[in-house]
Amino acid sequence: MDLKLINSPDFLKNCSQKELEDLAADIRDFLIQRLSVTGGHLGPNLGVVELTLVLHSLYQTPKDKLIWDVGHQAYVHKILTGRAGQFDTLRKYQGLCGFPKRNESDHDVWETGHSSTSLSAAMGMATARDLKKTDEKVAAIIGDGALTGGMALEALNHIGHEQTDLTIILNDNEMSIAPNVGALHSVLGRLRTAGKYQKAKDDVEYLIKKIPAFGGRLAATAERVKDSLKYLFVSGMFFEELGFTYLGPVDGHDLEDLKSNIQYARDTKGPVLVHVITKKGKGYAPAENDAKGTWHGLGPYKIESGEVVKKPGPPSYSGIFSSTLQKIAREDDRVVAITAAMPGGTKLDQFAAEFPNRMFDVGIAEQHATTMAGGLADQGMKPVFAVYSTFLQRGYDQLVHDVCRQNLNVFFAIDRAGLVGADGETHQGVFDIAYLRHLPNMKILMPKDENQLQHMIYTAIQYDGGPIAVRYPRGTGYGVTMDEELRELEIGKWEVLREGSDATILSFGTMLPVAEEAAHQLAEQNIDIRIVNANSAKPLDDNLLEELAKENRPVLTLEEAALQGSFGSAVLEHFHDHGHHNVVVERMGIPDRYIEHGSVPELYEEIGLTSEEVVTKLRSLFPRKRQRA
Amino acid sequence: MDLKLINSPDFLKNCSQKELEDLAADIRDFLIQRLSVTGGHLGPNLGVVELTLVLHSLYQTPKDKLIWDVGHQAYVHKILTGRAGQFDTLRKYQGLCGFPKRNESDHDVWETGHSSTSLSAAMGMATARDLKKTDEKVAAIIGDGALTGGMALEALNHIGHEQTDLTIILNDNEMSIAPNVGALHSVLGRLRTAGKYQKAKDDVEYLIKKIPAFGGRLAATAERVKDSLKYLFVSGMFFEELGFTYLGPVDGHDLEDLKSNIQYARDTKGPVLVHVITKKGKGYAPAENDAKGTWHGLGPYKIESGEVVKKPGPPSYSGIFSSTLQKIAREDDRVVAITAAMPGGTKLDQFAAEFPNRMFDVGIAEQHATTMAGGLADQGMKPVFAVYSTFLQRGYDQLVHDVCRQNLNVFFAIDRAGLVGADGETHQGVFDIAYLRHLPNMKILMPKDENQLQHMIYTAIQYDGGPIAVRYPRGTGYGVTMDEELRELEIGKWEVLREGSDATILSFGTMLPVAEEAAHQLAEQNIDIRIVNANSAKPLDDNLLEELAKENRPVLTLEEAALQGSFGSAVLEHFHDHGHHNVVVERMGIPDRYIEHGSVPELYEEIGLTSEEVVTKLRSLFPRKRQRA
Repeated sequence: MDLKLINSPDFLKNCSQKELEDLAADIRDFLIQRLSVTGGHLGPNLGVVELTLVLHSLYQTPKDKLIWDVGHQAYVHKILTGRAGQFDTLRKYQGLCGFPKRNESDHDVWETGHSSTSLSAAMGMATARDLKKTDEKVAAIIGDGALTGGMALEALNHIGHEQTDLTIILNDNEMSIAPNVGALHSVLGRLRTAGKYQKAKDDVEYLIKKIPAFGGRLAATAERVKDSLKYLFVSGMFFEELGFTYLGPVDGHDLEDLKSNIQYARDTKGPVLVHVITKKGKGYAPAENDAKGTWHGLGPYKIESGEVVKKPGPPSYSGIFSSTLQKIAREDDRVVAITAAMPGGTKLDQFAAEFPNRMFDVGIAEQHATTMAGGLADQGMKPVFAVYSTFLQRGYDQLVHDVCRQNLNVFFAIDRAGLVGADGETHQGVFDIAYLRHLPNMKILMPKDENQLQHMIYTAIQYDGGPIAVRYPRGTGYGVTMDEELRELEIGKWEVLREGSDATILSFGTMLPVAEEAAHQLAEQNIDIRIVNANSAKPLDDNLLEELAKENRPVLTLEEAALQGSFGSAVLEHFHDHGHHNVVVERMGIPDRYIEHGSVPELYEEIGLTSEEVVTKLRSLFPRKRQRA
Repeated sequence: MDLKLINSPDFLKNCSQKELEDLAADIRDFLIQRLSVTGGHLGPNLGVVELTLVLHSLYQTPKDKLIWDVGHQAYVHKILTGRAGQFDTLRKYQGLCGFPKRNESDHDVWETGHSSTSLSAAMGMATARDLKKTDEKVAAIIGDGALTGGMALEALNHIGHEQTDLTIILNDNEMSIAPNVGALHSVLGRLRTAGKYQKAKDDVEYLIKKIPAFGGRLAATAERVKDSLKYLFVSGMFFEELGFTYLGPVDGHDLEDLKSNIQYARDTKGPVLVHVITKKGKGYAPAENDAKGTWHGLGPYKIESGEVVKKPGPPSYSGIFSSTLQKIAREDDRVVAITAAMPGGTKLDQFAAEFPNRMFDVGIAEQHATTMAGGLADQGMKPVFAVYSTFLQRGYDQLVHDVCRQNLNVFFAIDRAGLVGADGETHQGVFDIAYLRHLPNMKILMPKDENQLQHMIYTAIQYDGGPIAVRYPRGTGYGVTMDEELRELEIGKWEVLREGSDATILSFGTMLPVAEEAAHQLAEQNIDIRIVNANSAKPLDDNLLEELAKENRPVLTLEEAALQGSFGSAVLEHFHDHGHHNVVVERMGIPDRYIEHGSVPELYEEIGLTSEEVVTKLRSLFPRKRQRA
């Protein structure tokens, strides 16, 4: 069928199984076709086609609430709620968001992007329902990887205790983004192979009857054995122990199996967990046979060959990070790397290939990762936690309380710092400077290019004064020449890259091209700009700032970070705390709102983080300067 | 024995059981005596006397690593490691810290204060040991409450997966601070009543032999039943499922039982969890029979009568918060309260007494609490999460990603904001303004006194524009008259409390007495100070700031918060962003380091957050002003 004709999921209730099967095939074709052009999260969505069809045939959204954990698997949901026509704009500027978005549809009741939030949100909504005495159904759809995040476990513990009426659909594809780790994964593995609930339960009941009667102490134990067997390992003991009714495992590509179990869950009182086994990439061979996680989320590809379209270019910052760390680790056996379920994204899989015993993937567990790194550092190791800027937000208290307070030598390699583009709001790495800068003992660096990055990584490993963060952006470097020898940089010593007598731009990290272009344009207008590569937000270069204060020319700070409390604020604080109240400081960065998806240049344009704006701002300070002849 | 003679725990290895029993009694006497004068965490420490003796007789610290979760139960450890002589100074300025402290002793390898961090730290240390190929033992001692924190669950999942050699001592006293909640608590309850491991295991083995042999499908199920029974409910299935060897339950006051189990755990390969049942307050009747958590941590008391010494005084800010919320909730059934295991501390137990169905204690789970509040708000409720400033740090990502990004009407009642005194470094609530202010949509208020607090609480409930935080300090109000009628305040409208033409003090929240005293002294010196009750850090009062900029007199900001990125920085940012580069702004607050324990006035003195300093700072701006005749 033409999927663009769907404007509501209501019709699903009247579909025959054959019609649903045909629709599933149409949706798969649609996704494979469209995403080959736009890119997107193909694998996760191909895995949940039948599941989403069944959910929408059983739940009456938007009255009932479907909450998609992480949310990159909500494409089928978007198609079924009237958005097929917008898939050409998927993840593009002002186009369809790659995650649930409340302003796109009433059917999107909860926005996501980070993992493990859906159970808490569902618990909030179900509790509101019970207090309001309304009757809508609430279901959260969560992956096996996301379930190991601490906040999801906190929620399981609370929901099981309160016995709140809601359904958790555990979408178990045996890998989240990377192959899954953790003991819970083994629990699920045992459940997967344990056979169907009902059948095994019958068998167990039969076995119980075969246990003879005993007297005395043994009688009590025997009774307990019997009681326990009733909700034992065959029935998802782990979840039953936590207070959930466990249903499963269910074949996530069998419409009948899905329907009967989810319907039963929906209509059962109290919390129910339905364990659904799905295959990531189902129905498209290259994505099904994806060992490396390539098809989890990707750019355009060729459908026939399954070849991923790659633009040639310089290596990525993540790649430079990992290869530099490998180089250092060969000489320094204190180096240990940690990732929270992102071995591919951080490129630590490269490091792990060479040093399998010195890389730890702790699962989606940034809190644990941060403090475990602290424990390693406490015992003389040099732990490196490579983590996306927005995901380190999960480790904030551990930064405050464990690492910075004890001044431990943990190196935070903060990837995806600054705007990230297509992933949008939930992934823009714009808060890290503000949430790190007020922490005593912390150091925050950012290189101007990939060559400086490798030296900063080396510097961070050599540094013995406490925690240090090096942030670097998503994507590729500039292709600059890479020095052969790694060298230690002086922390808190900025570089004057261009002299100029009218004003100074303090460029933090990757804003340098904007500064340079602006300086070039202003030179045309007879305004001479000094450019400083301010590669450390904490500490600042106090000496250089004192010189600037003495000189008393305008200073403009430029950063890809929230304007409240980040680098520019640090500069302001410095001048005032040192009594230089008269320095004209202009700050440019990310305004006080969340920035949606789009290409990074489009977003720069939207928020005015461009060389044109720099020119306008600085030009206005020199009204009498004339165009150079 | 005279406990002050102990300077190392080494002697414990040669003690007879009788000697250890006598020592336990001496330690209890010592604690009951000393804490009756100094106050402190009596209940938790009386509960772990035998446990700590046994640990120190089996582990060779500081080579072996003992890591105390939360750490308020480490007094016995402090006595055994040579610090009995310092107990007169417990929790006092420059005295013995109430938590493990690395600069006090080599035996304190890891500092704590917040809960649920010990497993991650232990994992880091044990991993470092394995990489360095050394042979020290690592054990973490964690309470049943702390075990439900998300980061502890993340760590369990990772440790079970890696099968790292370490021991977890689960100190199960059936309540952490408040009676424990959560499904895991029920799991432990079942284990507690399940009898001893070995005995039950023998019984089960016997029972298994009685199950007759079967053929076909049943045979497979029967085999699985048998396999599973071997490590079934009797042996801590929940933990065994996660990859741990479970030992217990162990009587935490039986030296023999403790010794044999912990020794076995210490010498067993892989991760072991020893489930120890202790009684909080053991050996002191008033603390043993403590239903309300009074004896968890408290001030001085009378030993004979068990009467807690209370100074009469005005009601606490927490009390005002809860009673005001009750008042509002009587009229507004959208109001729902949430606490993360702090019903007593936040005084929400008062609220819960009146509205048992509208208060949720989610356990030590600030992440879940924050997002659950978001779910409630999404469905039209008015959730209030009452939480200490430092504990909300655990919910930072949920603030960024769930609540602020979706602009949900969640009210954060931030208790213990500012310096807290005796609890020290880990509990000083000085970062919240800095970690909240850069979040889009957030509002941050602080009242000048308890009467303004009640109006702010009312205002926050009425507010429909998104998330709002009201922060208030630990301790009691000033005893000001409380208005009968609650009223809505204009958010972002500051109050000029005193006019003055020379300079302006912008006082955020509770700094007002300091401002007033300084203004009084400066008036004597002919300097007229305007005082503004700047009761909102976000939004600022833009109109008032514009007037101040026009006037162009010096401005001093005063706050009990980190100087980096907090209220004073917001004021600086405002002036510069609005082109007022010339305003002299001085900022006073918490310097860029962690502040240790002591009374709040002593700490003010130490960091110079006093009226004298305000006078000095402002006086220096007016060198020509003369003393008033």
